[in-house]
Amino acid sequence: MHKLTQKILDGHKLSIAKGITAVENNFPDSLQLLEELFPYTTKSVRIGITGPPGAGKSTLTNELAKTLRLLGKTVGIVAVDPSSQYSGGAILGDRIRMSELFGDSGIFIRSMATRGSLGGLSLKAKEVGDVLAASGKDVVIYETVGVGQSELEIVKASDTVVVVLVPEAGDSIQAMKSGLMEIADIFVVNKSDREGSERFCINLQSVLEIRLKSMDWIPPVLKTVALKSEGIDELSKNILAHSEFLKKNNILEIKKAKQNENKINEIVESELIKFYRNSDLSKKTLEQNESPYAKANEILEEIFKRLES
Amino acid sequence: MHKLTQKILDGHKLSIAKGITAVENNFPDSLQLLEELFPYTTKSVRIGITGPPGAGKSTLTNELAKTLRLLGKTVGIVAVDPSSQYSGGAILGDRIRMSELFGDSGIFIRSMATRGSLGGLSLKAKEVGDVLAASGKDVVIYETVGVGQSELEIVKASDTVVVVLVPEAGDSIQAMKSGLMEIADIFVVNKSDREGSERFCINLQSVLEIRLKSMDWIPPVLKTVALKSEGIDELSKNILAHSEFLKKNNILEIKKAKQNENKINEIVESELIKFYRNSDLSKKTLEQNESPYAKANEILEEIFKRLES
Repeated sequence: MHKLTQKILDGHKLSIAKGITAVENNFPDSLQLLEELFPYTTKSVRIGITGPPGAGKSTLTNELAKTLRLLGKTVGIVAVDPSSQYSGGAILGDRIRMSELFGDSGIFIRSMATRGSLGGLSLKAKEVGDVLAASGKDVVIYETVGVGQSELEIVKASDTVVVVLVPEAGDSIQAMKSGLMEIADIFVVNKSDREGSERFCINLQSVLEIRLKSMDWIPPVLKTVALKSEGIDELSKNILAHSEFLKKNNILEIKKAKQNENKINEIVESELIKFYRNSDLSKKTLEQNESPYAKANEILEEIFKRLES
Repeated sequence: MHKLTQKILDGHKLSIAKGITAVENNFPDSLQLLEELFPYTTKSVRIGITGPPGAGKSTLTNELAKTLRLLGKTVGIVAVDPSSQYSGGAILGDRIRMSELFGDSGIFIRSMATRGSLGGLSLKAKEVGDVLAASGKDVVIYETVGVGQSELEIVKASDTVVVVLVPEAGDSIQAMKSGLMEIADIFVVNKSDREGSERFCINLQSVLEIRLKSMDWIPPVLKTVALKSEGIDELSKNILAHSEFLKKNNILEIKKAKQNENKINEIVESELIKFYRNSDLSKKTLEQNESPYAKANEILEEIFKRLES
């Protein structure tokens, strides 16, 4: 057994941190650790919180975590900030959060940047979520900006997806165009004390009714002002209601099976890429005497020759 | 020789469209086509236009294209909308554009959604850009939302990166956090007829001066109102100036070599993933009797066994 497994299952904070570091940095034994932890990861509720930049996702996530704590639930947060590879934003975010939630042993927050990640951002985030789930967190929250492809992959690994918008998001067509419509289980209009909030909510709701009337679950549109802790109780109630809905209708099982299938593919693919990057073949990219397409072909032929023999 | 190569080099519009379709859908002979076109792709100037959702990137790109056409330059546009896998946004965008720019043979616009793409969005966008470059377009514009990881990869393949913001983007710290700071060669504050525009520009400029004073090229901050065609001449002048700067200081060569290296790696990696997805091994993901980690391990062991033998 991996030396961290039992300690993580016991909820030992330092071991959780060490386990996450092992996973994030692809330590050789991290796959073993994840495999051993897996049977204990299935009980956590996974929530995805996403939306455009500046919608107030971090604040909302903090407030939601506090509310869930008051309901007696333990919480793990995986905050993914893909932009911080440039600006170190994730670290800053961490500090702001820690000052508020530091000292509560029922909560664990990990911010992830994407520097150095070989395209495996979404896989890494889910793996970190698994470590937190295995450590006994009742709720695991994935928080990420809802625009990029890898970022949407992360929230698709959640049971319940909360899409956070602001009244200035413009008319509801803009919300549709941003592609968040179809993945949302719950809409939150944050900063709803701002002008135009009422109109925005009504527009959003009417679009939802037209587009989603055939579905069993109509995503509610909730108003919050996260900075003033307003509307957070209502949000947490709706999340738990959606959770119940999934269980009662046997949708959760189907979701979990699909999530597992995606995860297997992601692991295999990221390991294949790692194999190539660590091999002698990747050094051939520096010999640029011909077109990149011809060079890639040369490398691939060599790999497939090895595979076929 | 591929049957489309010569026709694309001749700028034959239907053949360009067919070539792009072959590339987007990974037709078996698309790599051959790209290889044959490559020697003719190096003369085009590549411009990346990026920024948060709702900043007006499409309108700005249209206006810039019109201005470049008036300067006698031919233009290719690759518009990547990662959200449209859900809402079909790219197709709508296409229609709006075509009505304005239709009939001009010096311009070619292609919108790309990401549906079905095996994580190879950024590679596909660059390959489409190569087809347009080979068809003789003086300028190839990549337009994409500037938030996700794959999306930032696309603009990193540009010689000149234009980051589009709006006055409501808030204080400059928000702009920094959005991670667009470090990749921008030119900043555009669009919708600059709105309130707070002046203050926003000044803030942005002062942050730029502190952070970037050691660089040879200080990114200019330009004001536009794309909907009214205001400030576009100035933008196109600055783009051409940056282009000259890169050439004069021999930075362009270094950039191109790095871009090629990235492209080789992306091709090899996407082909490896394709190999796995098309193999008998990927069907194993459906047998979910154990943990996804154990299953992934099982698949990987089989692949590596084949590789090593």
